[in-house]
Amino acid sequence: MSVTAAQGFSAAGIAAGIKESGNPDLALVVNNGPRRAAAGVFTSNRVKAAPVLWSEQVLKGGEVTAVVLNSGGANACTGPQGFQDTHATAEKAAEVLVGHSAGEIAVASTGLIGTLLPMDKLLPGIETAAAALSEHGGEKAAIAIKTTDTVHKTAVAGGQGWTVGGMAKGAGMLAPGLATMLVVLTTDADVDAAGLDSALRAATRTTFDRVDSDGCMSTNDTVLLLASGASGVTPEQGEFAEAVRTVCADLARQLIGDAEGASKDIRIEVINAATEDDAVEVGRSIARNNLLKCAIHGEDPNWGRVLSAIGTTKAAFEPDQLNVAINGVWVCKNGGVGEDRDLVDMRYREVEITADLAAGTESAVIWANDLTADYVHENSAYSS
Amino acid sequence: MSVTAAQGFSAAGIAAGIKESGNPDLALVVNNGPRRAAAGVFTSNRVKAAPVLWSEQVLKGGEVTAVVLNSGGANACTGPQGFQDTHATAEKAAEVLVGHSAGEIAVASTGLIGTLLPMDKLLPGIETAAAALSEHGGEKAAIAIKTTDTVHKTAVAGGQGWTVGGMAKGAGMLAPGLATMLVVLTTDADVDAAGLDSALRAATRTTFDRVDSDGCMSTNDTVLLLASGASGVTPEQGEFAEAVRTVCADLARQLIGDAEGASKDIRIEVINAATEDDAVEVGRSIARNNLLKCAIHGEDPNWGRVLSAIGTTKAAFEPDQLNVAINGVWVCKNGGVGEDRDLVDMRYREVEITADLAAGTESAVIWANDLTADYVHENSAYSS
Repeated sequence: MSVTAAQGFSAAGIAAGIKESGNPDLALVVNNGPRRAAAGVFTSNRVKAAPVLWSEQVLKGGEVTAVVLNSGGANACTGPQGFQDTHATAEKAAEVLVGHSAGEIAVASTGLIGTLLPMDKLLPGIETAAAALSEHGGEKAAIAIKTTDTVHKTAVAGGQGWTVGGMAKGAGMLAPGLATMLVVLTTDADVDAAGLDSALRAATRTTFDRVDSDGCMSTNDTVLLLASGASGVTPEQGEFAEAVRTVCADLARQLIGDAEGASKDIRIEVINAATEDDAVEVGRSIARNNLLKCAIHGEDPNWGRVLSAIGTTKAAFEPDQLNVAINGVWVCKNGGVGEDRDLVDMRYREVEITADLAAGTESAVIWANDLTADYVHENSAYSS
Repeated sequence: MSVTAAQGFSAAGIAAGIKESGNPDLALVVNNGPRRAAAGVFTSNRVKAAPVLWSEQVLKGGEVTAVVLNSGGANACTGPQGFQDTHATAEKAAEVLVGHSAGEIAVASTGLIGTLLPMDKLLPGIETAAAALSEHGGEKAAIAIKTTDTVHKTAVAGGQGWTVGGMAKGAGMLAPGLATMLVVLTTDADVDAAGLDSALRAATRTTFDRVDSDGCMSTNDTVLLLASGASGVTPEQGEFAEAVRTVCADLARQLIGDAEGASKDIRIEVINAATEDDAVEVGRSIARNNLLKCAIHGEDPNWGRVLSAIGTTKAAFEPDQLNVAINGVWVCKNGGVGEDRDLVDMRYREVEITADLAAGTESAVIWANDLTADYVHENSAYSS
């Protein structure tokens, strides 16, 4: 399924030799039209990789013919040469695809920061990938963008006569020295760039932006949405936006489920907040508290650490009105001891923390992972 | 030395039975005058433990006769009963010390959040501690406030005829379920409450406030400075403030050196920042980056993770002008690859990261620790 679930797209995933392991490392996604509308959201990290700087420019035009994605190197912190390499990648794809310009080609990279890509392998790889393009190539493309992902991630949704599909890799910045969440979504719905942009921003705001595996923001995060219009159907915008959100939420959940070294997926729901921003701020603070993340790993319903985390925020609340449930047991009531913590069953991978701010009616959900010795090992044991 | 290095103070540390281990768990520090001026700074966490709420009120009077400190329980998130227990603790100390009121007695607690203190052991313990008060009791007091500290921490500084001494426990919130950095400083200098407050705030701002072992803010952090005036000397304010800062910096460095599970002490110096606030923001962002903390643990000079962390801040800088040195080797120059990373020697416990923002002339130093499997173990393996 993946990026070729929607009509009008072909894709390929090949091993270009960028990774020393010989594993697949280059993906090509091509929009065969008739429409080539596109939207994108990128990392808000101010230290942006060359492909992010390039693709931001491409997306300003509102049209994307193809996306070249590579694993095995992030092309971040690589200076003018790194940007030239991204430009050369787009030029090569434009040349191979015939009749297109580099300005329609988005580029995304993932892997080590601070090293140049092996262009002598990447450029010939684009030719190989173009020759392998197929309307059934979505799975292979999803596999080629994996770094330390244990599984490739794809999702699909849609409506009457139209489809939204996508692929993703990464989870925050979990890998050793690696950067990046890369996501490409495609649709055969006939939607213009403005409609895509609106749907994509709304979707990422409550999905990928609320996944916080380890609190680390990448230099390379890229989410693209391409529309071919091949279905000839223009869905109602709300329905379309909901389908995009569904695919994003599905992929985001898969990223958390495959986060490196994690043993728990933590769903943090903040309820009764004065504002949605308050709910998100509190959720993130809980998601990033290393002591709590350790406690969850140890299956210890340590609600004191939740309160400590809430206490560091500027959100509206009174300390003696806070309530916290872990897996449905309200272990903290009115800022103090609540139900018996021994009632909390934490044996399963998914853990649910509910923080009730008793300050309003807004809410938000943030997904996070626990902190484990495996996480430390995977991010310290290999020099990179 | 500790809190009895200065004249006019007596102290004791005893085992009251608060800790199930039977280790020392109750400390009493008494200012015998003639002056009883005091200043304090407390956690900025909005979820404050009962003893913090109590002592903040006491300090508003500018006079403290004695400080009761206990380990074995934080008395945080304990509701009205917790506050009553703190009040009863102060009343008991006032009664035992004769001729004083509870309003002059500061209280500090450290240990588990969310459980009430065993007052049947704590209150008799105050009598025992009062009977054991000694002008040589500083070391025992420092030992009695330890939780998972492997060593007790004391420091001393001073000038012509006057002394500042102190004790500390904890490091951020490193212990399993435990909260707290507790610090008591004493001086025999003849300084009023305003002078103490000014010196203490200036000192903590650049010492304890810039120690960031694991990014977690406690509900119980308390730093007190008591002056007896027993030396009869009133030092020049700048000289006095510098002595207070020296003791605070010494204790802060000891806290980092004893942080649970840590294998590295990381000195992060941000230079050439546009403002001191920028320097601190960037330093904290680097200090809290889990991926970088793992890399340092693995003795991997992964400067890309430093740049990623800097990129999440609002500080003034241009990405292509950033420079980063690790242990003196400028591994990143102008936002890209610099000197050979193989030149970096990271075998020793202390690691120095220098981040040059090339945006001004301000600077700041933040101390942090690495992230290790031992940290995860110590904060997850024991249920608390």
